[in-house]
This record gives sequence, C-alpha cells and structure tokens, in this order.
Amino acid sequence: MRYLIRFSYDGSRYNGYQKQVDAITIQGELENALTKINDNKEVSVVASGRTDRGVHALNQCAHFDLSINITCDKLKMALNSILPNDIYIKEVCEMDDSFHARFNVKSKEYIYKINLGEYNPLECNYVYQYNNALNIDEMKKAIKIFEGEHNFKSFAAAADQRESYVREIFKTSITLDNNILTISFVGNGFLRYMVRNMVGILIEIGEGKRKYTDINDILTLEDRKEAGKTAPSEGLYLKEVYY
Amino acid sequence: MRYLIRFSYDGSRYNGYQKQVDAITIQGELENALTKINDNKEVSVVASGRTDRGVHALNQCAHFDLSINITCDKLKMALNSILPNDIYIKEVCEMDDSFHARFNVKSKEYIYKINLGEYNPLECNYVYQYNNALNIDEMKKAIKIFEGEHNFKSFAAAADQRESYVREIFKTSITLDNNILTISFVGNGFLRYMVRNMVGILIEIGEGKRKYTDINDILTLEDRKEAGKTAPSEGLYLKEVYY
Repeated sequence: MRYLIRFSYDGSRYNGYQKQVDAITIQGELENALTKINDNKEVSVVASGRTDRGVHALNQCAHFDLSINITCDKLKMALNSILPNDIYIKEVCEMDDSFHARFNVKSKEYIYKINLGEYNPLECNYVYQYNNALNIDEMKKAIKIFEGEHNFKSFAAAADQRESYVREIFKTSITLDNNILTISFVGNGFLRYMVRNMVGILIEIGEGKRKYTDINDILTLEDRKEAGKTAPSEGLYLKEVYY
Repeated sequence: MRYLIRFSYDGSRYNGYQKQVDAITIQGELENALTKINDNKEVSVVASGRTDRGVHALNQCAHFDLSINITCDKLKMALNSILPNDIYIKEVCEMDDSFHARFNVKSKEYIYKINLGEYNPLECNYVYQYNNALNIDEMKKAIKIFEGEHNFKSFAAAADQRESYVREIFKTSITLDNNILTISFVGNGFLRYMVRNMVGILIEIGEGKRKYTDINDILTLEDRKEAGKTAPSEGLYLKEVYY
C-alpha cells in the first residue's frame, strides 16, 4: 500500500533532509522508523524535495510503500511514538500506486523570516537576525519582478548543473509583523539555494546597495556570480506543498 | 567596579543556571566569558536566583565585579561576542558596590506556556504540549487563591529544607492566545519548583480532577504530598526581575 505523509520538522539538529551515511537526517529518521513498523523490511521514502541543513518544514510531504497492513491513524501514532520530538507526522493518507510525492507537486510555498528587532537567543535557530535598517518598500517592488516564468540560473547554487533552470513563481509577498519580516514565494519549483539567493538580493536592495530593477538584469545574465549572498539557512521554512 | 547585567537565554542545552563541574550551565558560560574579559582574573557571577535545567529566561539579572576598566557598551559587546548564540546580554549598567542581584530583588515574574493546539516540533523545547481539554474558567478561579501571602511548603520541592516557606504573590493571570495558554505569577520570591508545582495543580483543576477550592486546603496542609505533579521545565520562563 502507498501512503502519503504530511509532516513538520525543526531542521536545527539535522544535516538536511536527504539521507547520508554517518549523519543524522530527516529522511534517515523517517526510514528507520518506517522500517521498524514494516516488520524490519526496508522502506524508501520519497519526499516532495530536499531541504538543506538547518532549514525547517511546516508542511513537507513524502510517499512510501509498506508491505504490512496498517490504518492511517495507527501509522500516524506509531510513527510519532518512534520519531524524535523535532519531527512530527501531521497526517497520513492512503494513495493510489501512481501517486508520486515529487513528480506530482503542483506548487510549493517557502517562507523566509528575518528578525529586525532585538536579538532573541530563543529564536537563534528560527530567524535570520538582521541589525540594520531595510527599505521594505524597495524590497516589495523588487520581489514582484521574480513573479512569472524566468530562467533562474543566476539564483541557483553555483555547482548546480541541470537541463533547465526555468521555473515559474506564481505569488510573492513581504509582510512585517512584530519586527519579523516574512518573505514568501509560491512557485512550481525551486532550484537549490534559490530562495536563499533571492532573499540575499532582496536584502541588498533593502540596504540600498542595489536598485530593485537590478533583478531584471541579473535574471537576464543567467550567471550566479551576478547575484548576491546566500541568506543563512535558519530563516528558511518549507511552508506548503500543493498537489 | 560592580556591574549589573540583564540577559536572556534558551535553557534547552544547559544543565540549569547554576555552575556545575563537568556540565554546561548558564553561570559557567558567563563566568568563563567574564574571566577572559577581566584579564583572566576569575569573576564570580551572582544572579537574582537559579533557573532549573530546561527553563528559559527572557530577562534574568546578575551582578559581578571586574578589576579592569571597561564601559558598559564595550562590556556588552565583548560578552555577546564570546557567549554562545543562545545566551544574550541585553543591558549592562554600572552599580553601587552595595547592590546585590539576589538580596535586592523586589519581585519577579515567571510565565508558563502550554500549547493546547496541534503539536509543533519547532516549539518542542519552548511550550508544554497538552492534548486534552482544560476548563480555563476553573483555572482562573483557582489561580486567584494563590494571590497574597501564604506558606507555600506544599508547592516547594520535596527535598527543600529552609526556615520559611512564606512568600507573597502579588499578581497572577491566565491568558489564551492562538491556542497558547500563558500562566503568569508575579511575587516577591519563589521556592524551587514552586511555579511548576502551582501549574501542575492548575492543570489538574482544569482537567476536573480537583476543585479550585482544593488549593486552600493544600496550602493549609503545608505538605508537598498533597499537591499534584510538577509541570515540565520546557514551558517555564523567568520573564522579569524587579529591583
């Protein structure tokens, strides 16, 4: 039987989502727990995509097949009783064998949180602390340029080699609440480091180091060296996956 | 010169505030950092009081003496550059030699956070997760009985031996916001585990296992065995210290 899980995690302690030998990862924890439940027959988990080290997920999704018979409710309880406290299964559904958690993704939302207020040590793994003034109006003009279909090669990881860097961003927003600036991107797919690189350039625009119209030029040049710094991982959250 | 610091910390990684051999503690980190700054001459830090393992502080206060000359601004910067990310110095003031961070306390506020909503793995060290219904109106009636001067022996740690268990609670409140129940106590002093033991009995009253008037009887009996469970440490925060 194929199952879909929706789950959340605190990425602080993990070496990213993807399984690695000799390092704790979200995928590793999930597969260990599922293998136990599946009478010790190995289970492979396919997520909607990876998240990097230190990145959090509010709603990540993944599928896998089990050889035992178990109801969704029982599977959810069993998983949550085995998994560490910083990974939580929110929902389990039975799916058709044709369902694929990566290939069937229609869109995803990522959010990035920046604390513009006083540093809070209780949030040091959950927001990017930024201590200077940002011109948020300029950042709001800039982020709109990302909307639509573009070649995002300038915003991909430098080492990322692939056939197509074209992605579509459907919706963006920037909101300020209690000194926390939340930057949101909804799109049909995101290249590695793409959100953190887009946030990096938005910060440079907010600082006045670049004009918001620079984003047009950077997109056109299709060269990572043209864009700015990669914003740190602790502010990034996979918020939703839509099928 | 005597200094007062106001600081915040995430207690998750520490074995409590008080210095221990072979265990990381908040006091240990502060004294190590201050000794470095003080030309390696040992510095002793006196806080307003301890916090237990896993307990957080939004505004803890402490005093110490340095033999070097340093401005408050520079001392704040130096401390924050040495201390780990989960301890943060918010303010440094020069004080009279007669000032004492523990003896001069007029009152303190502790808050306790309970999550009544869906479990959030990103908050597992910062709220107590409670998955059943609580009658908050009964809890609000109950907490008022704690206000005033009482012998709190029934709410002290069982092993706690001292001359007087009499403390005065000036103000209490219970508020619900976004499924987070916040219980606040302002008082002139708190015995070890006292807040967590008061929260434990309030939860039993919220569950309907006890009547709110039971608090009167428990206070009168002056016996720890009469009270309930100790609420877990992760929900507890030292919020303010008043001098």
